[in-house]
Amino acid sequence: MIHCYTGNGKGKTTAALGVAFRASGYGWNTCIIQFMKGSWYTGEIDAVKLIPNIDLVQAGKGFYKILDDKLPPSEHRRAASEALNVIKERIHSGKYSIIVLDEVNVAVSLKLLKVDEILNILKNAPQKTHFILTGRDAPEEFIEIADLVTEMKEIKHPFQEGIQAQEGLDF
Amino acid sequence: MIHCYTGNGKGKTTAALGVAFRASGYGWNTCIIQFMKGSWYTGEIDAVKLIPNIDLVQAGKGFYKILDDKLPPSEHRRAASEALNVIKERIHSGKYSIIVLDEVNVAVSLKLLKVDEILNILKNAPQKTHFILTGRDAPEEFIEIADLVTEMKEIKHPFQEGIQAQEGLDF
Repeated sequence: MIHCYTGNGKGKTTAALGVAFRASGYGWNTCIIQFMKGSWYTGEIDAVKLIPNIDLVQAGKGFYKILDDKLPPSEHRRAASEALNVIKERIHSGKYSIIVLDEVNVAVSLKLLKVDEILNILKNAPQKTHFILTGRDAPEEFIEIADLVTEMKEIKHPFQEGIQAQEGLDF
Repeated sequence: MIHCYTGNGKGKTTAALGVAFRASGYGWNTCIIQFMKGSWYTGEIDAVKLIPNIDLVQAGKGFYKILDDKLPPSEHRRAASEALNVIKERIHSGKYSIIVLDEVNVAVSLKLLKVDEILNILKNAPQKTHFILTGRDAPEEFIEIADLVTEMKEIKHPFQEGIQAQEGLDF
């Protein structure tokens, strides 16, 4: 089963976190693989540590360097290849029922990864592994392959009214 | 701060669960008040038990009877009044930073509760209490009062293709 949470509104990563949390109630293991820097708060990292069934790992630290420092294409390829290895390693460890590819839609739309590389991984994963793909601007191919797609659409956002993000609530 | 998660797609209650889980990482306490029967699975109830910072309570057991048995209006009022008391009691206990009114939008659209009754509760709550209102068909008044509104919009759903809901993933 593949879920895709996309759209410009809040709640995509949060819903994935909710699924992981809920699945832990059934004793299922989830691995959350983060593609983008700064989308996670200390609070959620600490929360995840409370649940032994949830592992949180970073994919492609190199991506962050690329985004920050505009490194050359060769570095780009190295980072992508590292990230893909992290994903494959986790999938084939056999430990996880659910793999969350957090912000993978963004990594693809920024061309840090190719759609086909992710599609290949999804197609070659064990049938029993569930995936959640998050991030705005999901490519058409992910929407096509997903069983469930929800668009989180921003209707109203506090930043529109100049309110600062708030620790704990973390909208 | 008031969040409202509405729309016909999956992820509303799940995102609220994610917020509660994340907030527990900051040591914040959350009370999730459920208005509708059957929207929660054993897995998430068990998951919530793993986190001492999250309490899960039912509001208005009477509602369930009303929906099932079509009880008379007097019973309806009694159930609503009980539910409102549960909410007020939890808010004014001073224990919680976040109160989730799960499926309250539906309870209001089914006329089990009046919009004004909930608005009054929100307006009279301590400033520091955050609320999350979930459920499809959020009334215009909730959208108006909320600081953040996300519409979870169904783009694709496995039931469209005849796949059954699955324990653990619980889409």
